[in-house]
Amino acid sequence: MNIKISATSHPALEAQLAAAINNKTKPLGSLGRLEHLAVQIGLVQQTTQPALREPSIIVFAGDHGVVAEGISAFPQDVTWQMVENFLADGAAINVFARQNSIALHVVDAGVNHDFGTREKLLSMKVANGTRNFAKEPAMTVAQCQTAMKNGAELVAALSGNVLGFGEMGIGNTTAAAALMHKLTGVPVADCVGAGTGLSAEGIRHKQAVIEAAVALHANVEAPADVLATFGGFEIATMVGAMLAAAERRMVLLIDGFIVTSALLVAARMHPAILDYCVFSHQSDESGHARMLQALQVKPVLQLDLRLGEGTGAALVYPMLQAAVNFLNQMATFASAQVSEKSSD
Amino acid sequence: MNIKISATSHPALEAQLAAAINNKTKPLGSLGRLEHLAVQIGLVQQTTQPALREPSIIVFAGDHGVVAEGISAFPQDVTWQMVENFLADGAAINVFARQNSIALHVVDAGVNHDFGTREKLLSMKVANGTRNFAKEPAMTVAQCQTAMKNGAELVAALSGNVLGFGEMGIGNTTAAAALMHKLTGVPVADCVGAGTGLSAEGIRHKQAVIEAAVALHANVEAPADVLATFGGFEIATMVGAMLAAAERRMVLLIDGFIVTSALLVAARMHPAILDYCVFSHQSDESGHARMLQALQVKPVLQLDLRLGEGTGAALVYPMLQAAVNFLNQMATFASAQVSEKSSD
Repeated sequence: MNIKISATSHPALEAQLAAAINNKTKPLGSLGRLEHLAVQIGLVQQTTQPALREPSIIVFAGDHGVVAEGISAFPQDVTWQMVENFLADGAAINVFARQNSIALHVVDAGVNHDFGTREKLLSMKVANGTRNFAKEPAMTVAQCQTAMKNGAELVAALSGNVLGFGEMGIGNTTAAAALMHKLTGVPVADCVGAGTGLSAEGIRHKQAVIEAAVALHANVEAPADVLATFGGFEIATMVGAMLAAAERRMVLLIDGFIVTSALLVAARMHPAILDYCVFSHQSDESGHARMLQALQVKPVLQLDLRLGEGTGAALVYPMLQAAVNFLNQMATFASAQVSEKSSD
Repeated sequence: MNIKISATSHPALEAQLAAAINNKTKPLGSLGRLEHLAVQIGLVQQTTQPALREPSIIVFAGDHGVVAEGISAFPQDVTWQMVENFLADGAAINVFARQNSIALHVVDAGVNHDFGTREKLLSMKVANGTRNFAKEPAMTVAQCQTAMKNGAELVAALSGNVLGFGEMGIGNTTAAAALMHKLTGVPVADCVGAGTGLSAEGIRHKQAVIEAAVALHANVEAPADVLATFGGFEIATMVGAMLAAAERRMVLLIDGFIVTSALLVAARMHPAILDYCVFSHQSDESGHARMLQALQVKPVLQLDLRLGEGTGAALVYPMLQAAVNFLNQMATFASAQVSEKSSD
């Protein structure tokens, strides 16, 4: 993909945003993280009066050949069953997206199931699941490129300026842990976690599977090759969507462990993408804290979530609204005739 | 006040709530804090299908005689000026309450200013500010009782089942720090912070003022007497409102440092009140983390806010909505025909 992402840095605009924030009727800096979000969104949108329009979340679904190694607490069928649940409005992400008036799109990026033609399902299936990366690369380079291109196409069809990322794919914490290890150098033991609910023994097995696979594919280094070797179709499609969304100067809502692993790939390709990302929350999946550290970013929420689907992205959205609203709607010391700080 | 607050504990209902949550289409426990909130609200409302009705936030305003000691970065007039700002819809709390469809009420509990008759201002003024507790008790026992009774009356007029607490009062972090020290035993040095923006020297002075006052009123021990001696009219009115709200089995949204100091007083009088409280956020005001520890509670948000006004209470509200919504609206494994966890 031919993508160009510009850093949002703009010292003059940043100074204007800081001045606007500091003139609001409140002690200096007292809105904490919301002030940082207001500045970030202003810089992304290149204005001192940012506005959030038509937010949406895309849930990317895909299956993983590595489930053959017994690395998940749930059977693979749960991927397509949960896609049906999304289409029937029954999942957590449906509830939270509806609550916060966020449009929800569901994409079959490579689920091992034939859904037929379904009105509410975007079909961008590359194949019926990836291959087992414990034995061979999860996808071919061509498949990986197709998935990324699919993601970019999805974003081209959107009209809003905020995009949240979610995923569903039994086995994908295993893929995400492998991507994390390859792209950050963090030991596999610190990348793996319980996923949907493994026992301690299950986690040790998952670690062993990844370590063996990493040894098998030892000479894979470039981010695109790492993605093709260990990723999933939902992850690769997401990487393409993320890059395209940042190129279009959208605000990207990054969810938990798997979504952040996709962002990690995207950021290794185009580091400026980080300027567009809001890190919604720190997941309870044990590798996520380290992954966020590796990216040198701080999550907005810490709610011990580990559900995926984009639930953290949906839940953080009111905080972005609060950031934009205080900037646009609060009175200034002058307009409200409130006295400013005295010297102490 | 003759108040009776029952603990919400109800093992059978708690088991029903846990079962309802665990049957939802998601890995066990994967909604983290939201699951705890759902259980808590269910127990408060004594149902497995809780609902949030007509949420409101009351901002309690009052002035503090201790400002004569030079303990605030802002002049006392800012209290009434900010009340005017609330009435004119220009403050942060106006923006956040409006965003989340929360009714906002502003109470003059004892501001040192004559507002005249104002349509949107609830007048429950006990006096034009407290006395200087560096020299004498901030209020008489009778004044303190009047303020608490006022708070209970405010709550009796509400029809919703969620109540957030906010405050405005130049000097009130000094009062709150003194209350905290007296009721928790945490050293004054660990109770004081920058408030609206003191320098390090200003904070040291504030600490010295509180330490001298604590020595002056050394034999004050009972929570009601501690409140009368060091509190503010906005704090005492809030204590009465909190007790009445818990008695009515409302959900209480506790904001930052000052609101939590009022809750500390209320909890020393009626420990069961804690069952009804959601601790909205951990303030950046330095004593707040220790105050929450002393109460053995965990805040939902950590956004480095230190603004007061009930802003944290307004911002946390969508998280309560999410908790109630997932419990009421998500599909179950059975209804969605999703496979459950396999053994690993």
